[in-house]
Amino acid sequence: MFSGAQFSIYPMTSDFVPAILRGIAALETYNESLRRETDDISTLLVGPPDAVVRAMRDAFTEVARGGGHVVLSATLSRGCPGESDDPICTAPALAPLRADEDPVAGAVSRFDPGVDRGIPVAAQISLYPLGTEAHMARIGACIDFLKQAGVYEKSKHFCSKLRGDASTVFAAIERAFIDFAPMSAHVVMSITVSAGSPSRT
Amino acid sequence: MFSGAQFSIYPMTSDFVPAILRGIAALETYNESLRRETDDISTLLVGPPDAVVRAMRDAFTEVARGGGHVVLSATLSRGCPGESDDPICTAPALAPLRADEDPVAGAVSRFDPGVDRGIPVAAQISLYPLGTEAHMARIGACIDFLKQAGVYEKSKHFCSKLRGDASTVFAAIERAFIDFAPMSAHVVMSITVSAGSPSRT
Repeated sequence: MFSGAQFSIYPMTSDFVPAILRGIAALETYNESLRRETDDISTLLVGPPDAVVRAMRDAFTEVARGGGHVVLSATLSRGCPGESDDPICTAPALAPLRADEDPVAGAVSRFDPGVDRGIPVAAQISLYPLGTEAHMARIGACIDFLKQAGVYEKSKHFCSKLRGDASTVFAAIERAFIDFAPMSAHVVMSITVSAGSPSRT
Repeated sequence: MFSGAQFSIYPMTSDFVPAILRGIAALETYNESLRRETDDISTLLVGPPDAVVRAMRDAFTEVARGGGHVVLSATLSRGCPGESDDPICTAPALAPLRADEDPVAGAVSRFDPGVDRGIPVAAQISLYPLGTEAHMARIGACIDFLKQAGVYEKSKHFCSKLRGDASTVFAAIERAFIDFAPMSAHVVMSITVSAGSPSRT
């Protein structure tokens, strides 16, 4: 299996360079578990899906707690048939669903919002289970989970809008990415997480 | 058919509010052809796929020509089975591929880079043909097109990196979104377009 993300953090300030570098520095905690590479557009993380999401959470919260309007945008992917398997991505969290297991109940039971970061965020996420005609059913199950996790604000065209503390929202993103397709499936997710918007609606 | 996008523009400046509002004002040219709605995270555009991409191009270039580092991030979608048909989305550009038509050659022949905007951009895009087991073949054909269009810089994990003038890159995005799946298919695309990065690599 190959899993990872391309993510970017956009601090809406003229001092964006040091802010972004603070976010990247927060990734060093994950040096053992994630491979990473930054260019002019995004930072690549390769590793187990749960660590990938947590590393993005930590980078984002590190930048956002400086205040102001900060957005993280990311594409997460696992199981892409065009990528070679990579041992660093081995993830016990991705044990296949048991045939008798309800994915929504499974995700709810594994959902761990952790400790509040004191950073309220709005987010929107889209799950794309690829290579299957069953993608809409899986998306529907994921939305059921988001509602039960208490982070679901509303449906928007092409995505679900979430709201909550950064810790809770990223914890829900982690489960959404992991629990709604078999271990071997190709799954992509797009996420946008926003803190400090002056136009909260 | 239903088609549209959720997009956001991130101007990395402390004066981001007027910059974003300038971008939104540029959408007024499309009031006849697109429905739109802006909240604290993104602007929704609903309408024909070609107009959706051109409107994003115009909003982005309007903000980017003010200088500084500006990023557009968007999720484009067409044919989602969860959305009702909408007459505003009727798009002659989406005439189905003829059975004997090579999608790459078709996209190349329809590709119109237009007039340079004088805004060099880097971009990364991912195409997700959903509900089919043939998604990797369609992605591969799209990459062939991007190479022939002269905008392809390199492959990255989970996306293709493009480079060129804003006009050329958005023209390639338009064809990539339209030409690599049947009219009735559910297709999603994630794009990030960046101008003025201080860390061009």
